[in-house]
Formats: sequence, structure tokens, C-alpha cells
Amino acid sequence: MKANKLKEIWSKGGCVLNGWLSIPCAFSAEIMAAQGYDSIGIDLQHGIVDYQEAVGMLQAMRASEVTPLVRPAWLDPVHIMKALDAGAYGVVCPMINSRAEAEQLVSYVRYPPTGIRSFGPSRALISTGGGNYLGEADEEIVCFAMIETAQALERLDEIATTPGLDGIYIGPADLTIGLTGKKYPPGFDREEPEIIDAISRILRASHDAGIKAALHCGSPAYAAKAAKWGFDLVTVSNDVRLLAGAAAASVGSFRSL
Amino acid sequence: MKANKLKEIWSKGGCVLNGWLSIPCAFSAEIMAAQGYDSIGIDLQHGIVDYQEAVGMLQAMRASEVTPLVRPAWLDPVHIMKALDAGAYGVVCPMINSRAEAEQLVSYVRYPPTGIRSFGPSRALISTGGGNYLGEADEEIVCFAMIETAQALERLDEIATTPGLDGIYIGPADLTIGLTGKKYPPGFDREEPEIIDAISRILRASHDAGIKAALHCGSPAYAAKAAKWGFDLVTVSNDVRLLAGAAAASVGSFRSL
Amino acid sequence: MKANKLKEIWSKGGCVLNGWLSIPCAFSAEIMAAQGYDSIGIDLQHGIVDYQEAVGMLQAMRASEVTPLVRPAWLDPVHIMKALDAGAYGVVCPMINSRAEAEQLVSYVRYPPTGIRSFGPSRALISTGGGNYLGEADEEIVCFAMIETAQALERLDEIATTPGLDGIYIGPADLTIGLTGKKYPPGFDREEPEIIDAISRILRASHDAGIKAALHCGSPAYAAKAAKWGFDLVTVSNDVRLLAGAAAASVGSFRSL
Amino acid sequence: MKANKLKEIWSKGGCVLNGWLSIPCAFSAEIMAAQGYDSIGIDLQHGIVDYQEAVGMLQAMRASEVTPLVRPAWLDPVHIMKALDAGAYGVVCPMINSRAEAEQLVSYVRYPPTGIRSFGPSRALISTGGGNYLGEADEEIVCFAMIETAQALERLDEIATTPGLDGIYIGPADLTIGLTGKKYPPGFDREEPEIIDAISRILRASHDAGIKAALHCGSPAYAAKAAKWGFDLVTVSNDVRLLAGAAAASVGSFRSL
Amino acid sequence: MKANKLKEIWSKGGCVLNGWLSIPCAFSAEIMAAQGYDSIGIDLQHGIVDYQEAVGMLQAMRASEVTPLVRPAWLDPVHIMKALDAGAYGVVCPMINSRAEAEQLVSYVRYPPTGIRSFGPSRALISTGGGNYLGEADEEIVCFAMIETAQALERLDEIATTPGLDGIYIGPADLTIGLTGKKYPPGFDREEPEIIDAISRILRASHDAGIKAALHCGSPAYAAKAAKWGFDLVTVSNDVRLLAGAAAASVGSFRSL
Amino acid sequence: MKANKLKEIWSKGGCVLNGWLSIPCAFSAEIMAAQGYDSIGIDLQHGIVDYQEAVGMLQAMRASEVTPLVRPAWLDPVHIMKALDAGAYGVVCPMINSRAEAEQLVSYVRYPPTGIRSFGPSRALISTGGGNYLGEADEEIVCFAMIETAQALERLDEIATTPGLDGIYIGPADLTIGLTGKKYPPGFDREEPEIIDAISRILRASHDAGIKAALHCGSPAYAAKAAKWGFDLVTVSNDVRLLAGAAAASVGSFRSL
Ligand SMILES: [Mg+2]
Ligand SMILES: [Mg+2]
Ligand SMILES: [Mg+2]
Ligand SMILES: [Mg+2]
Ligand SMILES: [Mg+2]
Ligand SMILES: [Mg+2]
Repeated sequence: MKANKLKEIWSKGGCVLNGWLSIPCAFSAEIMAAQGYDSIGIDLQHGIVDYQEAVGMLQAMRASEVTPLVRPAWLDPVHIMKALDAGAYGVVCPMINSRAEAEQLVSYVRYPPTGIRSFGPSRALISTGGGNYLGEADEEIVCFAMIETAQALERLDEIATTPGLDGIYIGPADLTIGLTGKKYPPGFDREEPEIIDAISRILRASHDAGIKAALHCGSPAYAAKAAKWGFDLVTVSNDVRLLAGAAAASVGSFRSL
Repeated sequence: MKANKLKEIWSKGGCVLNGWLSIPCAFSAEIMAAQGYDSIGIDLQHGIVDYQEAVGMLQAMRASEVTPLVRPAWLDPVHIMKALDAGAYGVVCPMINSRAEAEQLVSYVRYPPTGIRSFGPSRALISTGGGNYLGEADEEIVCFAMIETAQALERLDEIATTPGLDGIYIGPADLTIGLTGKKYPPGFDREEPEIIDAISRILRASHDAGIKAALHCGSPAYAAKAAKWGFDLVTVSNDVRLLAGAAAASVGSFRSL
Repeated sequence: MKANKLKEIWSKGGCVLNGWLSIPCAFSAEIMAAQGYDSIGIDLQHGIVDYQEAVGMLQAMRASEVTPLVRPAWLDPVHIMKALDAGAYGVVCPMINSRAEAEQLVSYVRYPPTGIRSFGPSRALISTGGGNYLGEADEEIVCFAMIETAQALERLDEIATTPGLDGIYIGPADLTIGLTGKKYPPGFDREEPEIIDAISRILRASHDAGIKAALHCGSPAYAAKAAKWGFDLVTVSNDVRLLAGAAAASVGSFRSL
Repeated sequence: MKANKLKEIWSKGGCVLNGWLSIPCAFSAEIMAAQGYDSIGIDLQHGIVDYQEAVGMLQAMRASEVTPLVRPAWLDPVHIMKALDAGAYGVVCPMINSRAEAEQLVSYVRYPPTGIRSFGPSRALISTGGGNYLGEADEEIVCFAMIETAQALERLDEIATTPGLDGIYIGPADLTIGLTGKKYPPGFDREEPEIIDAISRILRASHDAGIKAALHCGSPAYAAKAAKWGFDLVTVSNDVRLLAGAAAASVGSFRSL
Repeated sequence: MKANKLKEIWSKGGCVLNGWLSIPCAFSAEIMAAQGYDSIGIDLQHGIVDYQEAVGMLQAMRASEVTPLVRPAWLDPVHIMKALDAGAYGVVCPMINSRAEAEQLVSYVRYPPTGIRSFGPSRALISTGGGNYLGEADEEIVCFAMIETAQALERLDEIATTPGLDGIYIGPADLTIGLTGKKYPPGFDREEPEIIDAISRILRASHDAGIKAALHCGSPAYAAKAAKWGFDLVTVSNDVRLLAGAAAASVGSFRSL
Repeated sequence: MKANKLKEIWSKGGCVLNGWLSIPCAFSAEIMAAQGYDSIGIDLQHGIVDYQEAVGMLQAMRASEVTPLVRPAWLDPVHIMKALDAGAYGVVCPMINSRAEAEQLVSYVRYPPTGIRSFGPSRALISTGGGNYLGEADEEIVCFAMIETAQALERLDEIATTPGLDGIYIGPADLTIGLTGKKYPPGFDREEPEIIDAISRILRASHDAGIKAALHCGSPAYAAKAAKWGFDLVTVSNDVRLLAGAAAASVGSFRSL
């Protein structure tokens, strides 16, 4: 089984630069995978992507050697196990609100006796280079729990210390809504003190628990700041925003000339 | 965010004419959307349709300005939240059998603090006209619970009074089976007194609770009758039955001439 | 190789009732195939259907034992040979305007030494029951040339007498435009004397040449009339019109009640 | 409704030979369905297949008269009911670990009053020959629970005696991992005494409970042995292994010549 | 039939801003259509797009009211007529090298007696608003011939004066290769004097012939310059370049911070 | 641009082992690409594969480093240029019957001034490693003409000596039918003296002309023999036959035990 590049980067103290895919298309995934990201996550939650399209995207990204991650739609064994069998090297599970949920998450990602993942890595056997998949997958695959509600923040330590969990991933849009309702406009790259504070607390709690911390960002500048704060993985924007932003800028530029 | 036409029709006391799609095809959806329905539901439960095809159908219907609804396959956050992120203006959730289930349903449809819907309306931001989606979606999107079992009928009032629920939707085929087993042939447009009685009770209970009542019908004649009874939305037939019926009639007519 | 039902019906002097598919969907094809047609044509010319979708439609129709026909997009070996390899039992080629084109058409449909069809019936070997496909396909597969321009009408006899051609298929919409420009609204079921006259001439010339005549019709009534005139195959409407017509009628009926 | 061939074979005391599909493709399914299996299961758990592709595979297999089975991804009503509505004649549900789960499984497969399956067999009405689907489906459709964990083995009898269950299906790869962790390499056709013993116990318990026993095998030889042990259904290999094995053997043979 | 916005813009002396799609995805098309372009072309020649995907893209763009254009893969009636039946309001045909080819192009785009387009606008009847499609399509649909070889440049006037042609579209990458071989790197936004000269000649010849001139550009700045030169339509970049460029810039920015 | 492995093997005097794909599925392509072939051809002629599926197959094969070839459906610029833009490293064009056709083939594969290939390698720029694609593609991409008719055999030398052609590829099924009509059953691995003689003549003529010779074979044994005869590339079987053969053997083996 090919090694997980995330673990290599972390072993050198580096911060992973992660891309994000919401467009259901293998070709746009192949384009994104050629731009220099360390890893790329396919968003099966808010992306316009379902399992079958995600497989094509994983196939199109494979040659690039970008590490493929998946955000399943929910804490559901179907979505998590199918993503892993299809070759994902990590999952980022949304809306983990308790220790029990974090334990379920870990159990879906690991084979017995650690967890309850069912064996049958149909594509992963090919795409990961095969070999001793059963023996190595539990070690190579990374498992992130998203903390993005008020309830989850209250239970931060019990979640972060869940055995087998590799990291906490922060979704700032939901976290902001979860903490402050509709007070602020939704989005990433928060500057409100109470949100910054929550982000800092999660970062610290993750590191205290000996696991990684990841932050979903909107801009490279904010992501670079987050890396300096100590985040181990930063996601910057996604294919939808990059495409829309570039096209709108191009149109705007032409119209203004 | 563009306004929900259902709410406009209801504000004038009208009855919504809803179409229904079970064929997994964007072009048949585009055809159906050009025939004059007020709204059209994509059936992800019994239709031969999954999420990814449904997105294509939503895209193909968008230009028609027909209000797009979705029946998710089950009371499951994955299906409900993905349908909304893809641009649905309403959900019709099957098999709601208790107040707790109705509350879960509402919670999947509404953003915090009302519910637990996760923020990321990737396509909805485009297809609904964008703007203040976070601020307006909870108000614009309609949420129907289907009552179609004996148990649900017993708990009619506790379901109908669930805060945040917009209406009750009756599935007569399941309701008949739920109440009388296999005594009668399955289907819509029931005439059996005990089923008529159940339908009337649901209609009344919905209106007593200040919410809407909807009925799945087979024929325009029955639907017109239902509208006169006071139903606020009637679904008439679906693409499968319309196509099969028209083709069978055409073949039969030719064979008999 | 399973026998072609068209030939069986013709051997008893019958008129084939043919359906027509323009919706790119295997499920709508499966529905149509269950309604009693003798054969069904997939329209790769004006239908919103390309090769890969057509394969799924052929697969979905196979169990029904309806004879599958294909209208290729044009007189092009790619489209014709791929349709046959995918299991079609007949082709209806649009816009044949000369003897040379009719001969090309036949050559694409027949194996050497009659024609130049390349051997490799990947799906046809399975779907036709296999056996001696090379030995029997030239005999079982029917080949229709469409006559639908003024030029073609002038060359009617030279086309109709092309060796290996099984029949002439009339496209009344194009034929009307070809003969009279934009004088009349487009459509089937023509009643204009000059169009009726052209249709009659084609019917007679086909039968004089010892081949079949087919007419694309809009209504069962017109098709029944055509069958009485002596047409050997009539196509009645298509999936798009049947679906749109039934839905519009349903909406109209509800609105009027 | 067409009869279920599995029941016919069992009524004669025969052992069903079942094929297995993990490649998401209607054409490979059509090829597999032409090779002489009694039934073929589509693997929605570990196969690289999701619902929409599975429908195309069911359509492509229909003409072969092979009995179509589905392994849903998990004990989840969405997956099970959609598979049945799409025309499956049986489900093989993974990871059933208790009597309660077995009862849930049965409830998803049977209509009220036995279970809670919702009525709307959109494709099944066509593909099974229609007729009295509501009246006959509960009888014709077979329901297998997979026993593949240590916990399930402990609760073998309570699972096997679940009313309405038709059989137990053994997944040897997971069962081996469940019983012995990562001690042995994963795979089918186990020879370890403790696994053989578990398999024998399940076979006996199934028959004692008056239900069928099925075993997933890797080779025809092991499957034949299993049939002699008394298994009522054996699955032999799958499309991925057959294709990979044949290609690797072909390459190896050429390289060695 | 809805009016073609290109003609409206031209009637006011404006220059059309055209987008370009090479990613085979309806959602990326829907995103692009929301960014303010006047028209958007789907590239069936060099784009990774075939007919069936293009239909989904046309459906997804319809609601935006952006005028949909198509570049067919080649001067081939199949590709051109199918694109128009699918709802395109214009074609940009590559590699027109002679008057005869230009005449063929026009003939594929116009109905008799002008051309030989076959009647059957299955989707266009819906997407263009229906009405008198036969009567108006020849007028509304625009037809561009691409001049991009040395041979075509020599025959510029005979091509530009082809009756029924609406404009000349310049592909600078091919034109540069056609005129100078592999002397210069490929690409748009040429600055070499001999290429600028050729572009100017085409612009002048088009206007002299009373038709429009269009230029494929890489940057808004060059496109704005082209508009000032008098071009009637400028295409700026495409989805592939916009996405790749934005992602690479984002990665580069993060790496450099 | 990554080097073409075929050229590397040939430079060492080796014989390329080529696989062949007719199943329209990226996952079966990914499986095949992991079995040790040097190159794999996607059959767009007789395979049940069209352009868009072929792109997915190319993407899925990319990581394996197997050299991707494509057999276009016919001598048609659309099919050939789109395959190259999608990343194919070679084309195998069916039914080349004259020097003029061979010259057309070469012209579609090479950029000006050698040929008329249009520039726009949208996916090839990514999948081939980019770099100087315009400068290197003409050199790296291999171009095979299939000789498979009596006419082509007569014109063997004039075809083989076409400037820019890299090799002749023999399709034994068509060649046998072309030479002897329906006298023999179709298939590969011919043993009839007149066919062996034709194959030998083509092999010799190719080498005399300084180009490569390739043979489509059914079995590894025959392919090994062909390699000893001097063939530079042998294709052995295809995915359809490998899968069907392995499944039928498995079923047969079980039934006989
Ligand atoms: Mg979130
Ligand atoms: Mg129901
Ligand atoms: Mg016509
Ligand atoms: Mg298992
Ligand atoms: Mg060009
Ligand atoms: Mg051949």
C-alpha cells in the first residue's frame, strides 16, 4: 500500500495544502489535481457530487499522486466505507457532536478489532498499490471529525481524545452559524473575535490530544495565517469558487476596459 | 432568493397543481416542466432516480420557473440536505410516523438555531438567485411530512402540530395498505369509505394545525375533487404513468382501428 | 440468431406497428417497450440521444422482445455500423437522395461481399442469441432508406430498386418542407393533396420494386388509414409527444374542472 | 409476477449457482448474465456500484432470465427498498449482528402488515411481469442476512429464527476478520479449522431454523464442495476477479512463451 | 422563438462577450452561465465534451438567458444538426477552407430551400420558446465559419461572401500554426506582426462582406483591444484555463506566503 | 511530453503486448491496466464505447503508465482528433483501403505542415505531462492503418509506404471475410493457408517499408507465435472475451463437479 503523503508531510512538521472539489466531473478533478495541492478532498456533503461521480474523480486524480480525501455526506457507514473501498486515503466527517459519534466514525474507518469496517476494498486494492491492504489501511488512512456546532464545541475534549481519531477539521461556516445563528453572513476566513476564539480552542485541544487540526479557508492569505497558527492542514477555496471567481473577474475586467 | 411560488399561490387561497417525476432523465423533466404545472416533485423514493440524475432534472426544469420539490427516499439527513443544496424549494418526506420523526424532519430542513441543516448551498446559491440564502431559505422552503401508516394516523395531531412543519402530504397507496393491509388493490383515487374518512381526517387536522394539506392523486378529476375538498396541493399522476398510459392508448387505438 | 419479427409479420401480410424514442433514457425505453408495439426505433437523428444512451435503451428493451430499430443521425458508416453491433435489427437512414447514397447505405449494413460492414458484433452476439451471426445478419437485418426531399422523390425509382434495400421510409415533415418549403406548418399526418400524392407515389414505387413502404405518423387514426393504403410499417408518434401530450391534457383537464 | 427461480431450484433440492457483480457497467452485467448462472447479485456494498448504475445492470440482465439479487450497502431502508422497487428478487444484507437487526431487515423487505416496505414498485411492475405485485412480492422475494462478525455468530440462533427471513449468507472474508482479526490473510475459501467450524455451525443453524444457507466462494471447486456440504446457494468469484484473473493469466502466458 | 441576443447586441453596435466550455459538466456550465457572459460556446471540437454531455450543459445554461453557441467537432451534418436540434442559437464551425465548405456549412444550418437541415427540433422547440421555429430559426441562428489555415486565408473573400454566412471566427492557435508551422509556441493573443496582419485582413474582409468578425482571445485585455479593433464577438479564455489558472494561483500564493 | 513506451520497446527490438477494451467502463479499464500489458487500445469501432466513456477509461488507465491507444470508429477526423486531444498516444484506424485514405489518416494525426490536425489538446496537455506538446506530439504518437479487405491487400505497398505512417495493423476477422467471404467462421488466430499467406505478406511489406506490423490475436499462444514471426505489436483477446471466457469456465467447472 502506497504511503499516505499527509503523514509524510506531518512527520516533517509541515502543513498540508488541501484542495476541494464540488463539481461532479472527473475532468475538472484531473485539472485540479495538476495544480500542486498536496491532497484534495471530494465533497460528498455540500458538493454536487454523489458516489459514482466521485469514483470517476478519484480515478482521474490517481495519476497525479495527490492524496485523495473524501468528505462523506454524513456520519453514515454506507458513505464512509464506500469512499474508502473506492480508494480514499482519508475521510473528513461532518457534524460530529459527541464522543459517541466520534467513536462511531472511527469504527467505520477501521477494520476489526478496532472498528467494524467491512472488508472488500475493490478499487482500493488497485489504486493504493495493493499489497497488504488489510494490514496497513488502518494505519495509513486518516480520519478527521468536523467540529462545527455549539454542542460539539462544548464537548471538544471528549471528541478530540477519541481513540483512533487522527484530527479535528473545522468548518467555519457551520461553526459560525452554530455559535451565533444568523448574526453574521456565512463564509470562511472569520474575523469575529468569538469565532477566532473557538478556532483557537479547537486548535489547542487537538494538539493537546496529540492529534492534528485542520481548517477550511477561503483565501491563501488566511490559510497561510492558519498554517502559522499551527494548523496541520488547510483547505483553500474549492473548484466552484475558483471557477466562478476567475470567470467573474474575467468578465468584469473586459467590461471595465 | 427567488420566492417560492407555492407560498404565493397559497397566499391567494389557490390550490397548487404538482407534477411528479420517476423517470431518471433531464430531458423528460424538461418536457414535463413545459406543460403548465405549478410545481413538480422529483421522486427519489419510488422513482428510478438517484441524487446525481435528480440534479440534472433540477437543472433542466430551472428555466421553466416551475417550483422544484423533492421526495427524499427516507427520513435521512443525507438525502434531505443534499436535495436542498441542489436547489429544491421543498421536501416531501415519506413515512413520518411520530412527533419525534416530524421534528427530525424539520431539523434537517432548517438552519440553526431552528434545525441542524448544514450550510453549503452549492447549487442553490445559483439556482435560487443567490442573495441572502441563509437568511431566507428557512422561510421559503416548504416541508411536508407524509402520513401513510396506521401508526401515523393515530398520531396525526402530534405530527401536524410539529413546529416548523408546513404541511401534511397523503400517500394514498401506502395509507390504504397501512390501514387495510392487502385487502384492496394498491393505487390512488381511493373510494373506500374508511380511506376517504382517513383522508378527510388528515385534511382537517392539517388545517386545524394551521398547516397545508396535500394529496397524491391519479386523475385530474379526482384531483379537482380534492381541491374542492380544500386540499392546498394536489399531485396528479406521474411521468411513468402518463407515458405508459398514452403509449398504451395509442397502441390500443391503432390495433382496434 | 433470433428471427426478425418484422419479417414474420410481413410474411403474414401484416402491418408493423412501430414506436419511436427521442428521450435519452433506458427506463423510458423500457416503459415504451412494454406497451405492445411490434418494433421500436431509437431516433439518433432528431432524438436527444447519442450512441451510449442508445445502448442502454437497447438493453432495457431487450427483454420485451420488441424488435429494436435505429435511425442513425446520417448516412455515415460510424453511426450505422455501431448501431448494428449494438444489436439493432434494422436501420432507418435519413435523407437518402440518390441511388449512390442508397447503395452506400446498403453497403454499410451488409457484410462482404455484399457490403463493407466490418465484423465485430460485440453486443449483437449476445443480444440476438448469438449463433451464426455472420451468416444470418445480412438476411435478418432490415434496411430502410428515408425519402424526404424533392431530389429524392425525383429519383424515387432508382432508389427503390437498389439491390439489398428492404424498404422506403417516409418522413412527412421533411418531405413536406422539401417539396413545398415553408408553405405549410411542419408535422406528420399531412392532408395536402400534393403531399398525399407524393406519399402514394412512394408507396407504389416501393411495392413495384418489391420492397416495403413505411410511414411516420402522428396519430393512430392516420396510421390505421396508412395501413389500409398498404403501408407495411407505420410509426405512431414518439415518447416526447406522448409524454408532453398526456401531461398537457392532464394539466388542462385539472385546470378546467 | 414471474416466479423466483431460486425457489424453484430449492423446491427440487438443488443448489443455486450465483454470480456477483462489482463493475459498474450494464454491458459487463449483460455479458455475465449470458454465462449460465442461476442468479446474479449486484454488490452495492463493496462493488464500485451505486443505485443508478445498478438499475442499468438490472435492465441489461433482464432478458437473460437470470434471477437478479442485490447486496445493499448496509441495513438501511433506502437502499433495500430502492433495490426492490428497481426489480431485485432478493436482497443479501451485510453485517446483521442481532435479532433486532434481522427483524429490521425483514421489515424493509415485506409490505405491511408483515413489514414496513413502502409501495411504489416503479420498475418492478414492468420487469417482474406486473400482475399482482403487492400480493405476491412478499412471497417471491428472498431475504438473506449476512453473518460475518463474532457478535453475529454468538447470536446465530436468534438471527436464524427471525420470522420472515429466508436464509443466512456467509461472507468468509469479514467472518474471518471478525473471528480472528488480522491473523490470516483476507479472502474466501477458508481452510482454517476455526473458520470451517463457524461455517458449519451457520449451515446447521440455518437448516435447523428451516431456512437456507449461502456461502460466498472464490473457486468453483470450493463452491462444489460447499454444495455437497449442503449449502443452498453458492456465489463463485465476481466480475472483477474473473476479468483480472483472466487478463493476468493471458499476459503471464504470453510473457512466458 | 426567443430572439437571439447576439443579434440584439449587434443591432446596437455592441461587441458580444462570449465564454467557452471544455469541461464536460452541466454544473460547471451552470456556474459559468451565472458570471455575466452574453453568450457561451460549448466546444465539441477540442473540449472534452460529446453530444450527450453538451445537452446537459445546454439545459443547465438555459435559465441564465445566456445565448448558447456550439462549436461542432468538424464540418459534419450530424454534429451541426444535432447541436441545433438540442437548442443551440449558433454554430462556430472549425476548419472552413473553401467556398464549397462554407456553402456546406450554411446548408447544414438552414432549412430548405436555403439549406438541407432536416426538421425535428426536439429540444429546441421547448428551449427556444417554441412558436414558429421552422419559420424563424433560419433567421435567428447564427453561423460562423472558422478561418484558421493558410489555405483558408488565401480564399478569405470567397468564404466571407458565402450567402447565408453570418460571420468569420478566428482561431489564433491554429491560424498561427497554419501560417508559420511550429515556429511560435501555440496560443491566443498573438503579437507576431504576420499573425496580427492576418487577423486584421480577416476582420476587414468580414466587414467588407457585410458579416461579423469574431476572435478567440486569452485575456480580457487582448479581447478589449480586439473589440476596439472592431470585432463583433470576442471569446475570452475557457473554463479549463480559468479553473486551472485560479487554482494554480491559489496554490502558488499559499506556497509563497 | 512523456515518451511513448511503444517506441522504447521497439528501439530495443521488443514486441509490444497490447490489451483491448470493448466494455464501456472506467473501472474495468483500470482493472485491465493493472495486469501487465505494455499498451491498451480502446475500441471505439466495435467496442460498446463512445467518446465520453473512452475519456473516463483513459483517465482510469493513466496512473498505470500503460500506453493508451484508441481505435477510432472510422477514418473520420472527428473521431481521430478527439481521441488524440483526450490523450491517446496512438490510433489504429480501421478499413484503410488505399493510399489516399492512408494519407488522410496521417493528416488527421499530425499537425501542420505535415497534416491538418487542429490544435487544442485539452486533456493531452495534462495527461502527457504537458511541456512541448505541439513540438513533440507528431513524433511521439503512433499511427497504424488497418489492412482488412481484399482491396487493401492489393494496395498493400502503396499503403505501407505512406509517409508518416508508423505501422500496419491486421484485423484477421475482417481480413478473412474480405478475402474469402463467409467461407470460414469469423475470428482471430487463423490457420487457413491463404489467410496465413496474407498475414505474412503484410508483415513483410510493412518491414520492407520500414514500418511496424501488428496483429490482433485471440490467444497468448498465437500471439507468441506472431511475435516470433516478427510482429512488433500483438493484441491478445479483449475484456469482453476475457470476462465471458472466465465466467463461462467458472460456471462450467462448478456444473461439472
Ligand atoms: Mg459544515
Ligand atoms: Mg408512500
Ligand atoms: Mg426527416
Ligand atoms: Mg462482508
Ligand atoms: Mg482551431
Ligand atoms: Mg476489423
